[in-house]
Amino acid sequence: MSSDHVGAMPSVAEQVLAISEIQSLFAKRLRAMDTKQWDRYAECHTDDVVSESYADVPDQNRPQTDGRENKVVGAVALTKAISGLLDGATKVTTVHHGHTPEIELTSPTTARGVWAMEDELWWQRGDVTEHMHGYGHYHEEYRKVEGRWRISYRKLTRLRVTKTPGFFGYLRGRL
Amino acid sequence: MSSDHVGAMPSVAEQVLAISEIQSLFAKRLRAMDTKQWDRYAECHTDDVVSESYADVPDQNRPQTDGRENKVVGAVALTKAISGLLDGATKVTTVHHGHTPEIELTSPTTARGVWAMEDELWWQRGDVTEHMHGYGHYHEEYRKVEGRWRISYRKLTRLRVTKTPGFFGYLRGRL
Amino acid sequence: MSSDHVGAMPSVAEQVLAISEIQSLFAKRLRAMDTKQWDRYAECHTDDVVSESYADVPDQNRPQTDGRENKVVGAVALTKAISGLLDGATKVTTVHHGHTPEIELTSPTTARGVWAMEDELWWQRGDVTEHMHGYGHYHEEYRKVEGRWRISYRKLTRLRVTKTPGFFGYLRGRL
Repeated sequence: MSSDHVGAMPSVAEQVLAISEIQSLFAKRLRAMDTKQWDRYAECHTDDVVSESYADVPDQNRPQTDGRENKVVGAVALTKAISGLLDGATKVTTVHHGHTPEIELTSPTTARGVWAMEDELWWQRGDVTEHMHGYGHYHEEYRKVEGRWRISYRKLTRLRVTKTPGFFGYLRGRL
Repeated sequence: MSSDHVGAMPSVAEQVLAISEIQSLFAKRLRAMDTKQWDRYAECHTDDVVSESYADVPDQNRPQTDGRENKVVGAVALTKAISGLLDGATKVTTVHHGHTPEIELTSPTTARGVWAMEDELWWQRGDVTEHMHGYGHYHEEYRKVEGRWRISYRKLTRLRVTKTPGFFGYLRGRL
Repeated sequence: MSSDHVGAMPSVAEQVLAISEIQSLFAKRLRAMDTKQWDRYAECHTDDVVSESYADVPDQNRPQTDGRENKVVGAVALTKAISGLLDGATKVTTVHHGHTPEIELTSPTTARGVWAMEDELWWQRGDVTEHMHGYGHYHEEYRKVEGRWRISYRKLTRLRVTKTPGFFGYLRGRL
């Protein structure tokens, strides 16, 4: 999707607009998550979205070494998973920041992108602030559905993660 | 680079250019603040800019719970307020980073935008490094004045702020 | 929302596309560095790239006060310098994030840009995690070579850097 053929769709302007819209979509998802607006979070994704971003979450039933087992499929299931993790009995304050997108249009209605990311999560256990701090890259795919871009795939790769020993303690017995 | 072709207003290309210009404007403000270039800081704003970004600053005379009382109006007053806070008798090192803009054009000459943000501030009290670290979102409005975009409104909402107990000590008796 | 106008070169659409491509180029360099893909790192730069980003690295043979002496010239030399620093006998985990670009096209095939940046580096010395944490701005120049944008110049200015006392210990005897 590089040259500027008149008449052919999309034009250069439309390509750049698509990239801009995809960047805003990505921004909307992170903000919806960090401000716990779960309806807005869900509508950022296609109905059949596949997310492989859960490798950090301990789960005795899902081996972390098997990528396929860290998958969540569908906008409803994904929203339920993430809201349950951050906005259940324990409220987890989260900051997810995304940086320097590399967006590539693969057709007029599909694209892929990689974003540098950093996330910090905190919850309060009495006087102790439990904290997790991660760095990595989101690898995403996008699809235009009914005139609006949505995220259809996401994988998270990590450069570094640190956490307090008790960070995942609030999940005990829940996963 | 010369300006675009006169025609229908605004074309897709002109819309994307406006978004790009607004993003550069936002970048210029943060860089002017962190490098303490106050003339450049002022010119990022409209003469009638309204800023509601001071809720973090303690002030016995302005109740923090009343949003209207944390307002600063006008580019000159705003620049004086922020330069006084960071570049007075005590030099405060600051880093303000903005992420993942969601820019929406509301007319050919007006727009609004939300940015994820993180700020860190430090000053040295003898051997002690006083430090403040915040996360949140800037909610801004923009207006094109004499062919150039400027910020006409800003509000800061917070996800989390931590600071050393003595951080605001250098302001004692000044506000 | 009409499409863009075809006319003089570069059109508004092409200008915005160039800015987008330069931003992706910048993103590619940081990701190549942090994921240690050195072939990709090299190809982000012109053959004659000049980098003045090494002022933080102590070197008894190169006075830090003399900017000219912190220069590395050429894509091959630059890649060798940075890969040697981060991916030699001691593996250094790095996170480089870039924010809020201010890109200015200076001709159809040249541009300059400033980016806010933050970098963190870690390596493990037994039980001790050595750590460096910096903030500043990249000042870059770009050139389009054979249809593809590349970085032709980079300088790093700093707002703040902190590091553990032993951080540069792994370089002893190497520079």
